Amino acid sequence: MGSAAAPLRVLVDMDGVLADFEGALLRAFACRFPGEPRVELAQRRGFSVREQYHGLRRDLAEKVASIYESPGFFLGLDTIPGAIEAMREMMLMPDTQVFICTSPLRKYEHCVLEKYKWVEKHLGPEFVERIILTRDKTVVSADLLFDDKDSIRGAEPNPSWEHILFTCCHNKHIELEPPRRRLLSWADDWRAIVESKRRK
Amino acid sequence: MGSAAAPLRVLVDMDGVLADFEGALLRAFACRFPGEPRVELAQRRGFSVREQYHGLRRDLAEKVASIYESPGFFLGLDTIPGAIEAMREMMLMPDTQVFICTSPLRKYEHCVLEKYKWVEKHLGPEFVERIILTRDKTVVSADLLFDDKDSIRGAEPNPSWEHILFTCCHNKHIELEPPRRRLLSWADDWRAIVESKRRK
Repeated sequence: MGSAAAPLRVLVDMDGVLADFEGALLRAFACRFPGEPRVELAQRRGFSVREQYHGLRRDLAEKVASIYESPGFFLGLDTIPGAIEAMREMMLMPDTQVFICTSPLRKYEHCVLEKYKWVEKHLGPEFVERIILTRDKTVVSADLLFDDKDSIRGAEPNPSWEHILFTCCHNKHIELEPPRRRLLSWADDWRAIVESKRRK
Repeated sequence: MGSAAAPLRVLVDMDGVLADFEGALLRAFACRFPGEPRVELAQRRGFSVREQYHGLRRDLAEKVASIYESPGFFLGLDTIPGAIEAMREMMLMPDTQVFICTSPLRKYEHCVLEKYKWVEKHLGPEFVERIILTRDKTVVSADLLFDDKDSIRGAEPNPSWEHILFTCCHNKHIELEPPRRRLLSWADDWRAIVESKRRK
């Protein structure tokens, strides 16, 4: 009583949550390989696009990867509807710390710089300060992680954050084990999820 | 009793700890601005080179910054003596997780990609997987952080790591408040510091 609550720390993933990776990938694939079979967004299953294309026909794995490994791909991603507005509002919430927590590709050549540029372009320099680029998100300490990857593993077996699965074409069919929670989109009640984590 | 100890997690900073930022900066400054006054390594004080050059003569701040903001500067840094060998040995220690935890410049244009390339060149792709790029290291959870910056602040007032000050030209005159500890160089007993953090 009387002492201020600790601020809440929220990690927000980039691809699939802020930036529309899947939409851009499908459009660019259809444009560059018009004669090849492709996986429509409604048919996407599993986090890895590459694996699903591999399952469709082995050589398509390299083709789809060549799209997201191209220069300009990450910088050119559209924003996910409502993401920018939600980030700006979350950033202004009292006692709330917002970080963008994103994993670069193994082929990092274009993706790392373009992720920084994308954040500066769409969110501004104050969010560039808040980028955490890591292949292992389990070692970042926070109260919440909004991420579209269904299973997030790493060096820390008990991460401090609760993972909120952000709904995306490839994960919408997954039935979560209770008490796991989803955010269906940025139009869904992310504020209630944030408030649910405040220490009373 | 009987249960395995949790692995120890070690964060290692890059500039001044793995990569010789100060040496390269002074050499390049002397080469590019031969007529200008400069701060020899023995005279360096304070983490920010830019601030010290500003104190020497205001316009020198921009000049020294132009060196470390140049393309190729970060990629071209020499290794700190013993750093590569220590990292390889630490990586092979049982129950030990090693991450490279480094903060990019605000002017991130060249530095982010070059940090990834530097790690790949000097340590190999398995260490690229272990890069954490963040302007705020306090939100990364670990047992130890080897870093040459004397004061490391951020969103988390009580970071989980113990900060071991890695001795560098700009911090060697600082008298640490007990119980703060230093690592004088990679020839100093870093193994004893690592072992001192194991849960008994």
